[in-house]
Amino acid sequence: MKNTNVYYQDYLQLNNILNSQHPESFKEGNEKAHDEMLFIVIHQAYELWFKQLLFEVSSAIEVMSQQSINDNTPQLQTVVHRLNRVVTILKVLVHQIDIMETMTPMDFLEFRDLLRPASGFQSWQFKALEARLGLEYAERYGKEYYTSQLKQPEIDIIKTAESEKSLLHVVNKWLERMPYFDNIDHWKDFANESNEANIHPYWSTYRMRYSNSLAEAERNNMNAFDKIFIEGKEGGQLSAKARRAALFIMLYRGYPILHLPFELLNNLLEIDEQMSTWRYRHMNMVHRMIGTRIGTGGSTGKDYLKAALDKHYIFKEIAQLTSFLIERSKLPALPASLIQHLSFNM
Amino acid sequence: MKNTNVYYQDYLQLNNILNSQHPESFKEGNEKAHDEMLFIVIHQAYELWFKQLLFEVSSAIEVMSQQSINDNTPQLQTVVHRLNRVVTILKVLVHQIDIMETMTPMDFLEFRDLLRPASGFQSWQFKALEARLGLEYAERYGKEYYTSQLKQPEIDIIKTAESEKSLLHVVNKWLERMPYFDNIDHWKDFANESNEANIHPYWSTYRMRYSNSLAEAERNNMNAFDKIFIEGKEGGQLSAKARRAALFIMLYRGYPILHLPFELLNNLLEIDEQMSTWRYRHMNMVHRMIGTRIGTGGSTGKDYLKAALDKHYIFKEIAQLTSFLIERSKLPALPASLIQHLSFNM
Amino acid sequence: MKNTNVYYQDYLQLNNILNSQHPESFKEGNEKAHDEMLFIVIHQAYELWFKQLLFEVSSAIEVMSQQSINDNTPQLQTVVHRLNRVVTILKVLVHQIDIMETMTPMDFLEFRDLLRPASGFQSWQFKALEARLGLEYAERYGKEYYTSQLKQPEIDIIKTAESEKSLLHVVNKWLERMPYFDNIDHWKDFANESNEANIHPYWSTYRMRYSNSLAEAERNNMNAFDKIFIEGKEGGQLSAKARRAALFIMLYRGYPILHLPFELLNNLLEIDEQMSTWRYRHMNMVHRMIGTRIGTGGSTGKDYLKAALDKHYIFKEIAQLTSFLIERSKLPALPASLIQHLSFNM
Amino acid sequence: MKNTNVYYQDYLQLNNILNSQHPESFKEGNEKAHDEMLFIVIHQAYELWFKQLLFEVSSAIEVMSQQSINDNTPQLQTVVHRLNRVVTILKVLVHQIDIMETMTPMDFLEFRDLLRPASGFQSWQFKALEARLGLEYAERYGKEYYTSQLKQPEIDIIKTAESEKSLLHVVNKWLERMPYFDNIDHWKDFANESNEANIHPYWSTYRMRYSNSLAEAERNNMNAFDKIFIEGKEGGQLSAKARRAALFIMLYRGYPILHLPFELLNNLLEIDEQMSTWRYRHMNMVHRMIGTRIGTGGSTGKDYLKAALDKHYIFKEIAQLTSFLIERSKLPALPASLIQHLSFNM
Repeated sequence: MKNTNVYYQDYLQLNNILNSQHPESFKEGNEKAHDEMLFIVIHQAYELWFKQLLFEVSSAIEVMSQQSINDNTPQLQTVVHRLNRVVTILKVLVHQIDIMETMTPMDFLEFRDLLRPASGFQSWQFKALEARLGLEYAERYGKEYYTSQLKQPEIDIIKTAESEKSLLHVVNKWLERMPYFDNIDHWKDFANESNEANIHPYWSTYRMRYSNSLAEAERNNMNAFDKIFIEGKEGGQLSAKARRAALFIMLYRGYPILHLPFELLNNLLEIDEQMSTWRYRHMNMVHRMIGTRIGTGGSTGKDYLKAALDKHYIFKEIAQLTSFLIERSKLPALPASLIQHLSFNM
Repeated sequence: MKNTNVYYQDYLQLNNILNSQHPESFKEGNEKAHDEMLFIVIHQAYELWFKQLLFEVSSAIEVMSQQSINDNTPQLQTVVHRLNRVVTILKVLVHQIDIMETMTPMDFLEFRDLLRPASGFQSWQFKALEARLGLEYAERYGKEYYTSQLKQPEIDIIKTAESEKSLLHVVNKWLERMPYFDNIDHWKDFANESNEANIHPYWSTYRMRYSNSLAEAERNNMNAFDKIFIEGKEGGQLSAKARRAALFIMLYRGYPILHLPFELLNNLLEIDEQMSTWRYRHMNMVHRMIGTRIGTGGSTGKDYLKAALDKHYIFKEIAQLTSFLIERSKLPALPASLIQHLSFNM
Repeated sequence: MKNTNVYYQDYLQLNNILNSQHPESFKEGNEKAHDEMLFIVIHQAYELWFKQLLFEVSSAIEVMSQQSINDNTPQLQTVVHRLNRVVTILKVLVHQIDIMETMTPMDFLEFRDLLRPASGFQSWQFKALEARLGLEYAERYGKEYYTSQLKQPEIDIIKTAESEKSLLHVVNKWLERMPYFDNIDHWKDFANESNEANIHPYWSTYRMRYSNSLAEAERNNMNAFDKIFIEGKEGGQLSAKARRAALFIMLYRGYPILHLPFELLNNLLEIDEQMSTWRYRHMNMVHRMIGTRIGTGGSTGKDYLKAALDKHYIFKEIAQLTSFLIERSKLPALPASLIQHLSFNM
Repeated sequence: MKNTNVYYQDYLQLNNILNSQHPESFKEGNEKAHDEMLFIVIHQAYELWFKQLLFEVSSAIEVMSQQSINDNTPQLQTVVHRLNRVVTILKVLVHQIDIMETMTPMDFLEFRDLLRPASGFQSWQFKALEARLGLEYAERYGKEYYTSQLKQPEIDIIKTAESEKSLLHVVNKWLERMPYFDNIDHWKDFANESNEANIHPYWSTYRMRYSNSLAEAERNNMNAFDKIFIEGKEGGQLSAKARRAALFIMLYRGYPILHLPFELLNNLLEIDEQMSTWRYRHMNMVHRMIGTRIGTGGSTGKDYLKAALDKHYIFKEIAQLTSFLIERSKLPALPASLIQHLSFNM
């Protein structure tokens, strides 16, 4: 219910937003460092966007965690749309590094000492975002940083984020619920080419064709295939069942009901790629700015960032599936009754 | 003097920044519109950057308005560097429109009515930015908007911005101070090819060569040339003297002392181009979002934006100089004594 | 069937690609203009991408023009995917203008005269692309240009492109085939709120709700509504029936079967927006390069480009539909039997 | 001398450019893979730009290798301008990866086998570009690749590029020629604070101030400082003398004559950063496309690219200098006679 006029300035709370820049070097007794204003504004802009990213990712998790997620409601569309937005925001955040790079190392030196020990490691929102996407504490490089550098309220926020269901978690559950292999009726006439008794006839066939597709040098891929899809011994956050469902989606994305699930998986990979590009450009920028010195937060700067770069791929178990694709012309044809269930009701 | 530890969260005043988002549709009695959060955050991000742009442009004006600006101090370097930053920020702001475009018209409709009559026209920072760059009130399309839609404190800010020296103003003064033609000693042996008595021998020669360079279809360019460079009858904010200096800089930018002045002029054109691209993409975005309906501020939306697009080129008098260039091989050779003054002391 | 080894250099025909740069100014008797190489390479890069754009758009038209297009095949996915690619390519082409802008007007002058009367107007691929998307000869600004400036073989290519089915044409046909209103069974119990006998009960109801949604200042939108959706008097390339189907898709995109059609319409608007941004930045770039002089092709340069900017929106009839949306909460509820037909068969 | 009309199509040799796409999968007996056209076109576009990059870098080397490079000629401006262009082109090439990513792994599989053993490793232009910038054969990861995978003519081109003067080489020579420390007159009254006899009084003073600026944790930086600037024991392609000159430029870039040299050093770092971002995104793209399989060229794909990423920073010796900066307010004041030589002659 709306009953008053809204005014731009009040609606956006510009009094708060535009009066929260107080450079240390502008304070009495310090030598004014022009570029400190930029330093503050760009970090505030990043934090604003991190808030938005958390908002979008949380809403995606909420929708995906409904048991009743149904391909006939707009739920999946909504999730895909919001993850697309997450990707779009991340691309701008990558670009935004260009602005930071207009500050030269000499100009940063003018106020760098005034900031100690504040540092980007203290961005609890970014850490919460990683956690909500699916980065586990155990997988985090430099775990000790956020416990040593943050105050308790912020540590609590990250800990809470880590304790809640992550996007990767709800994606795993959703993949496990895919009903295509459970219904035995679909598969009773399916030609199981290899007749391996202990695995689903579809995957028994697929396994054989995949094996045939491998070049000599790639033979050890078969071991990986079996570990991941059959035995489920690969570890990680996705179950073997969920991985099979994800591979199935990639293979048969041409069927209508699999289109949005494919888009969703693709968005997860895009998010990882943009996060990773952001980390990489950020690392290079820090390197250019402070060389091999110690970061303002006391870390060894570039080295920390480099290690994080390698470890923090969140959806790597999905990315890995690409290794196990075969050509469309060699795909096992699906049973007609299943195809009907993948299609519209027209 | 630094005597306390700085903490990221406090330094950036994140309590203010991250608690200033209160969507109207999230209030009691309203239907929650998910996308309103994005709408608020993106406008706040824009306003943060507008603050930074105003900060950079104001500092550039301040440096440039010093009578004593001296090519042997870093003043001009500083100005060029900061205007470069302005261009870099504007490029990100253009890119940021991609994020807004992830909101569909149907999703905007969900909360659009709640915002009336707030509107982007009420961004007094953007108007102040245009004013500080050099847009005059008389040149502004839809002047009545900011008087009818803004409250007095914000109107006052814009009025103040308009009453102060603009970047274009101080550029004009700086160009007028260029000493190259005033010192008669340099020119006493200069070969004045056309011997027009009433104009400086250099420009008399240049005028003839320019005339010779024109193709048949371009002959009416000569009238424009005379109006602008000789008679100074073109109107606008740059004097004839300043325009001659600017053209001289473009022609002889190869001499060391003219390198930075050339970069500065180039930056002004870049700023106009990015502002103009921003307006254009913004116009298209609004058009996609609300079609031909009336904007939330009561304007006819796209039509306003389109008209502003054509009128708000701030540095058009500099852009125009391009029409009057001639090929390097045809440039009048400068007197040796002048060349020395354009060079390093090595 | 593959029977020989492929070699990178041969596969890409690099002997052709990399030996096709012969700057006029590098020829005997001319003064070498360094930047002419860039000028050639960037135009070649543009033409390569125009070829790819034509390839993608043509394939989209081919798929869409099949009478039997069926939501249960990957046809629509394929079209949406390829138009997405078109958008992605166009974004890079917009960015590519940054490269051209590293050439200064003085540097262009060094070889500009050598190129006459060659000009970008002679890019028959770009004109063919516009035609294949749906720009009609009658709508083209400066029609005379391509007949006066091109040789017969290239004119023929454009003429052929104009005579073939365009993307807009096949989209119109596809929209007209949407079956949702034709099947009377769906609508027999539908509550027609306004009981206008001569129009479909759904649109009769929608018309009333739309009318109620209008603010005082927007009342004349009703005339436009009636002209477009009821009487079909608006002219243009989309029939009233097709426009109704397109509006329906936008309104109910939440139903599974309408998701991809919505994406497709959205892609068309994105294509227009990117083409338009390209034209706008190109126009500004030309303006910066040659001022108000005559273009190498004899046109008045910027003025031609500006006029084309306003006229060459190809999918404006789809963009216009945004003006006629109403809020989700006010949408007429669809009959249950129709909903089933918009859903998966699960 | 121009005597014939130039025609767009002929000037750009579009007959060559546009008729050089012959997808293997379009040949008789193969199943047409739509996306192979994109694969060819994008690689051709890359190779066109690589040619342009080589052209610009070669011209920069040529200018820089003139013994007589003189700050009073436009030589340095020209070099900086062209390296700026190199950076701008590289940014577009990074962006262009977005286009490649519109090809899904399944779509790539459709024609991947037809291309063996062609691979991006066979882009001899890219390798020649790295060599001309300054990457030495000894520093190259996977040296064996280009000898095993390329034909002799292409190997010869790279070998030639490696044997010629690189950009890094001529930059080193140019830095060594900087005259500021050689002229003893400037320094006779300079206050040498630490009075280390064996080093130049300026660096003796700087060394002490730098040492004082270090925080406890950074003390080992002093060893690096001495190795690099005093003893010249660091190895690499830059001599100690050149490194001192480069550091001097960074510290005193505010003096007019050092502005362009600073821009030049900055451009080198930008080139490395863009090349590195390109490699990183390319690596991620390959990973998404082929997973952990073997690349078409027989390499282990991602692993090769990852190793190259770490090794192929070309200007790392310049980047490293950042670690040795001190605050402006602590810089040793330069002798007045030297300042005059860093200034204009006004």
